[in-house]
Amino acid sequence: VVVRNIRRPESIVMQGLAGAGVATIHEAMGRTGLLDPAVTARQHGLTIAGPAVTVLCQAGDNLMIHAAVEQCRPGDVLVVSTTSRSTDGMFGELLATSLRSRGVAGLVIDAGVRDLRELRELGFGVWSRAISAQGTVKATAGSVNVPVICAGRLVQPGDAVVADDDGVVVVPREQAPAALADANARLAKENDKRRELAGGVLGLDLYGLRPLLDQLGVVYLEEQP
Amino acid sequence: VVVRNIRRPESIVMQGLAGAGVATIHEAMGRTGLLDPAVTARQHGLTIAGPAVTVLCQAGDNLMIHAAVEQCRPGDVLVVSTTSRSTDGMFGELLATSLRSRGVAGLVIDAGVRDLRELRELGFGVWSRAISAQGTVKATAGSVNVPVICAGRLVQPGDAVVADDDGVVVVPREQAPAALADANARLAKENDKRRELAGGVLGLDLYGLRPLLDQLGVVYLEEQP
Amino acid sequence: VVVRNIRRPESIVMQGLAGAGVATIHEAMGRTGLLDPAVTARQHGLTIAGPAVTVLCQAGDNLMIHAAVEQCRPGDVLVVSTTSRSTDGMFGELLATSLRSRGVAGLVIDAGVRDLRELRELGFGVWSRAISAQGTVKATAGSVNVPVICAGRLVQPGDAVVADDDGVVVVPREQAPAALADANARLAKENDKRRELAGGVLGLDLYGLRPLLDQLGVVYLEEQP
Amino acid sequence: VVVRNIRRPESIVMQGLAGAGVATIHEAMGRTGLLDPAVTARQHGLTIAGPAVTVLCQAGDNLMIHAAVEQCRPGDVLVVSTTSRSTDGMFGELLATSLRSRGVAGLVIDAGVRDLRELRELGFGVWSRAISAQGTVKATAGSVNVPVICAGRLVQPGDAVVADDDGVVVVPREQAPAALADANARLAKENDKRRELAGGVLGLDLYGLRPLLDQLGVVYLEEQP
Amino acid sequence: VVVRNIRRPESIVMQGLAGAGVATIHEAMGRTGLLDPAVTARQHGLTIAGPAVTVLCQAGDNLMIHAAVEQCRPGDVLVVSTTSRSTDGMFGELLATSLRSRGVAGLVIDAGVRDLRELRELGFGVWSRAISAQGTVKATAGSVNVPVICAGRLVQPGDAVVADDDGVVVVPREQAPAALADANARLAKENDKRRELAGGVLGLDLYGLRPLLDQLGVVYLEEQP
Amino acid sequence: VVVRNIRRPESIVMQGLAGAGVATIHEAMGRTGLLDPAVTARQHGLTIAGPAVTVLCQAGDNLMIHAAVEQCRPGDVLVVSTTSRSTDGMFGELLATSLRSRGVAGLVIDAGVRDLRELRELGFGVWSRAISAQGTVKATAGSVNVPVICAGRLVQPGDAVVADDDGVVVVPREQAPAALADANARLAKENDKRRELAGGVLGLDLYGLRPLLDQLGVVYLEEQP
Repeated sequence: VVVRNIRRPESIVMQGLAGAGVATIHEAMGRTGLLDPAVTARQHGLTIAGPAVTVLCQAGDNLMIHAAVEQCRPGDVLVVSTTSRSTDGMFGELLATSLRSRGVAGLVIDAGVRDLRELRELGFGVWSRAISAQGTVKATAGSVNVPVICAGRLVQPGDAVVADDDGVVVVPREQAPAALADANARLAKENDKRRELAGGVLGLDLYGLRPLLDQLGVVYLEEQP
Repeated sequence: VVVRNIRRPESIVMQGLAGAGVATIHEAMGRTGLLDPAVTARQHGLTIAGPAVTVLCQAGDNLMIHAAVEQCRPGDVLVVSTTSRSTDGMFGELLATSLRSRGVAGLVIDAGVRDLRELRELGFGVWSRAISAQGTVKATAGSVNVPVICAGRLVQPGDAVVADDDGVVVVPREQAPAALADANARLAKENDKRRELAGGVLGLDLYGLRPLLDQLGVVYLEEQP
Repeated sequence: VVVRNIRRPESIVMQGLAGAGVATIHEAMGRTGLLDPAVTARQHGLTIAGPAVTVLCQAGDNLMIHAAVEQCRPGDVLVVSTTSRSTDGMFGELLATSLRSRGVAGLVIDAGVRDLRELRELGFGVWSRAISAQGTVKATAGSVNVPVICAGRLVQPGDAVVADDDGVVVVPREQAPAALADANARLAKENDKRRELAGGVLGLDLYGLRPLLDQLGVVYLEEQP
Repeated sequence: VVVRNIRRPESIVMQGLAGAGVATIHEAMGRTGLLDPAVTARQHGLTIAGPAVTVLCQAGDNLMIHAAVEQCRPGDVLVVSTTSRSTDGMFGELLATSLRSRGVAGLVIDAGVRDLRELRELGFGVWSRAISAQGTVKATAGSVNVPVICAGRLVQPGDAVVADDDGVVVVPREQAPAALADANARLAKENDKRRELAGGVLGLDLYGLRPLLDQLGVVYLEEQP
Repeated sequence: VVVRNIRRPESIVMQGLAGAGVATIHEAMGRTGLLDPAVTARQHGLTIAGPAVTVLCQAGDNLMIHAAVEQCRPGDVLVVSTTSRSTDGMFGELLATSLRSRGVAGLVIDAGVRDLRELRELGFGVWSRAISAQGTVKATAGSVNVPVICAGRLVQPGDAVVADDDGVVVVPREQAPAALADANARLAKENDKRRELAGGVLGLDLYGLRPLLDQLGVVYLEEQP
Repeated sequence: VVVRNIRRPESIVMQGLAGAGVATIHEAMGRTGLLDPAVTARQHGLTIAGPAVTVLCQAGDNLMIHAAVEQCRPGDVLVVSTTSRSTDGMFGELLATSLRSRGVAGLVIDAGVRDLRELRELGFGVWSRAISAQGTVKATAGSVNVPVICAGRLVQPGDAVVADDDGVVVVPREQAPAALADANARLAKENDKRRELAGGVLGLDLYGLRPLLDQLGVVYLEEQP
């Protein structure tokens, strides 16, 4: 099946999440939502955030990615999973060009990508399990905008997907505004902490960890034997 | 054994293959010839293409790489395999300097390399299974310019080897001109497609995939339940 | 336990080791001391060398890294290991900011790191097994400045740790001056060799390998059959 | 949270699924539902089928498995996942003894197990990602009988879990009777096929594949060149 | 293509090779011919040896295995490779039943198998990269009895394939009689050595290694410091 | 170097440790000492315990194992590590025969073994990282009875090594009696617990975990929504 109309978080929320970054949002969500770190950034220094358009493909077959392009709106993130594990290069420059023309922010794929140089030149963000030129066919049915498991996490269509150099985190659509609020609160606190730590205050004191060390029985010795 | 005289594809063909890139050539060859993606580019944005000078070494021993240097001509690509799996750093800056002075284009090795910074500064292209400073010895016999299996593919001396950010593809020597012709035809078609896709035409329409989706029973739903 | 006062190599020795680089020092030490190449550089072109401040943490718990910060002096390298294997992101920008304010050179960790972009912007060198935003707790006792096994090598507090694009090597504290002397002798010889190789002299001749090939029974054939 | 009352498939359905086995059920469900093959049988020749009691634990912490034991009924299968990847031995003989006394059929865990010999002697079936004696703590909250992702598949509490030497398949609760019916139909057909194949009929003829080979352009050569 | 008539080694040679086992034959061939150890025995204590009927399949597609069955004769070993890496379960009980009826000795496959229990009950030997119930299709052309790369080694149709608990070794057809003769000579010598070693003679003396240790500078210390 | 005389724990202690098993000893030592679970049992149901005779080899070279045999006494366990990572089959039936004649209990090796069937028939226990028939040479110096890192743990000659189906644990020689006493105390308690759990008492009550769950905020819901 292909589902045409999905609900998306407000774009102002997505912009906020992009500003917060993956690690902070993951903390703000109680340390949940992170994809397996094997799906990793294929460029440096890029952060994207957008609603997930999900795709479930047969391994080695990218037909449904083509079907998914039509369902994408500006700012969306394409999230691709396969029915069995594969590293084949299911996505390359032509698909990226097509997604670019629709304003899509980037791709998260639990498989391989190719045309890496061209993708980097396009500035199209890609997070993948592998890099492989191995070609694929267009022959088997799959689904667009159904819930998928991608790199060990459930992604519902319209969930907020945030990706940067640290990996990919998925925020359930309804939780996105609350996650953003919590992330922003964390960012504010982190700014304070960063200033103090940069000034030489120790984390042991800033976080009040000395009593904990004491209670855990950690002892200080003056010298190595 | 060391074989001194190998037949090489014409250099005009090699230049053409470098222009086409790994993914296109792999497609042009009917999706064959790709090395295992575990052997990966150790720099960004570099494409090389040249005739293979093949080397079979004992794991942890780079003696035969030294023997192979002498057999290299300008434009060649050194392709190194080992008798058992190893990630030791069999290749570094001094060997690269020597190959450079003979005009060698780069190295494909199913093992480890070291002196990575110096190799990048030299602009000497390297595709390897690992990065490791682990040193090796020069003690055991092997072969130069015999057929080798490198990263799961058969490479004959004089085969055309093309490598870029997507990995490495090997083209049997006799097939190189035909592969280039087919690759160039693909590139021309891809240019047309790229223009159309960039203009907003969907792959579903460009490739005529809608009847296939229909025939496979893919149905469109207006909304998530 | 936390050990406060450790003996460190002289800083002039550390500077020399940084100049020699990982591969040369590893050779100078008789091909010993290299950490498993799975712990890899998370930036390009950076070399650090400094005395190890060692940390042993519970997997998924970075409490003891905070305790270790206090024990660090300018030029030190933090070396973190865990009691069982984990890829969680135990280290990020705030800890790096704190270490930076104390003049610490960088981090070697047999686990994951996060805030990769910020770490790169700070110029804080990181060598790790993984990149992961997965958060950790601060709850369990461990040790600082005790001997640890990190990526398959024993690291004693105060050992010289050198890290660059090729990986990480550890030099026992007492051996550091001798390793430096040997490394410098190698560098001098390598400069000569590099000049000769760049001028077209073959390694076969430079290293006198032709008799060895002969003795091993390597024969030269004029042509492929 | 711990959810006390979950709906389970009828036990007659579970018995039928156990008889069909993992590969047949996976086919009957349109080739879906299979867990990642990295979670593998830790004994030979055992098949179990039962409703899932799901557990979500912190990595390295088995507190919630203890909470889950109380929610188990005879015939259930415990399905354990963790918030981040770990191979620690979260489950051993004492937990198995406790589950045994409640009639639990076995364990599927995306982590490690220990006391392997004792588990085999008990005849308690275990499918795990790893074998490790590494101990764990009982300190962190998690959940019982919530939806979990285990080895790349969504498992809802009460789903039918079937495991044998080939791995683990999960059947959504409502689909269990239909999957059983389809699996039984397949088994009947497979019996016929097995008899024919054992008698020397070729799959090419039994499945009518010769026209397909012809249409795909597969040609027969009489001899190797 | 499907090649119908291949040349096979004499069956008396195959029986001899089965008696020698993988490790001895690998030594007899100058330590060559071993498949990557990731392709491993899926049963205990079984040794097979037979001429290779080779199959090249698309990943996730077992159509050509069906075509290969027809080309098998009693004593053959089926050797299956795929065009890109996959762990899907391409082979199971029905295919084994069919091969059994033709007297085939076993299967070596650089992919996954399923119906493991049934295969073991049949006594049909299987060496595979993975165990997985993941189903495959029958849709894409490939080849039978062409040279294939399987687990990193070239296998020609009719080569002698020997497999036991230690893995799989391939002996080029023409070399099979010589390899057997050398293997038998080794076996005879090993019997002598085994008797001596069992009687308490040290390998140091039996192989005359003491002078080598001396020459390498190995010194004996009476006690740990 | 080869160190001839090492101090060993008393054999009565070793017998006790064998009775306790790996998981219990690891707990008794405060969850330390476990080797990486990648080094795994190559037979079922065997437990060994003995003083370590340690060996450090060059990868792909088993010369020093021969030197080590001479240093072994009845009940010892050979512990082999290599200078760089390798899966080659460095150990087989002939070495096992030799060790058997000296009463050695078994082998722990961070590399590969071969002749697996013969080792099982001999009843010689083996724990290894890999199974591989790949042959090795006898050419390079190494050490016997020096401290080695094996699978991520420091092993000193004479340390107590215990191995069973769960893996391998190393107990520093001086700690062996205390570890045994603690392990035996644990075994006694576990017997009591096993009886209670087998009788239906819940771990939640036996370990008094209900208040902890309460304090952590775990709530019970009567039914799935």
